[in-house]
Amino acid sequence: MAKLLALYKKPNDAAAFNDYYFSTHVPIARQISGLRRYEVSTGAVATPQGESMYHLAAILSFDSMSALEEALNSAQGQAAATDLENFAQAGVELLVFESNEL
Amino acid sequence: MAKLLALYKKPNDAAAFNDYYFSTHVPIARQISGLRRYEVSTGAVATPQGESMYHLAAILSFDSMSALEEALNSAQGQAAATDLENFAQAGVELLVFESNEL
Repeated sequence: MAKLLALYKKPNDAAAFNDYYFSTHVPIARQISGLRRYEVSTGAVATPQGESMYHLAAILSFDSMSALEEALNSAQGQAAATDLENFAQAGVELLVFESNEL
Repeated sequence: MAKLLALYKKPNDAAAFNDYYFSTHVPIARQISGLRRYEVSTGAVATPQGESMYHLAAILSFDSMSALEEALNSAQGQAAATDLENFAQAGVELLVFESNEL
């Protein structure tokens, strides 16, 4: 499979972030064709030692890296990317990779 | 489920890192009880724009946050954590969170 990892840094207003994320961004991102699994953190994103710099983590799974790239380049993928500007002003780290289950 | 995300920064010697990771670290980490899924990046960990600062990403899944915490505190979890010193000198970001499938 291939993964798109989105790590959202802590926003100024966590409640407003969550509200926008779940009511607006998720419905946009779910339109992305080829999306096989969409997992989102509930509660804190922590380190084993304590607090992290991140507020929310999302893992989007696709069948392959080419499916993921196609998805990112699609109109829906572009819409989701553009929507980041509306709520992820604190910053978001996006990572993409092909993955294997051991 | 709950996730432990390990993001390994680029090592000086990628081949040596991979060799140690797959031949030594993975067998240690697989001993961790309660580990339900162990996914590891193959190929580059990139951003949608290009290169990232990471060499390898691993996603370890557990049934719940309490199972994950128990696993980290177990002898096997501690052994895996201690083993990081043997190959992750360039740095590793560890993130833990409970997750939900949307």
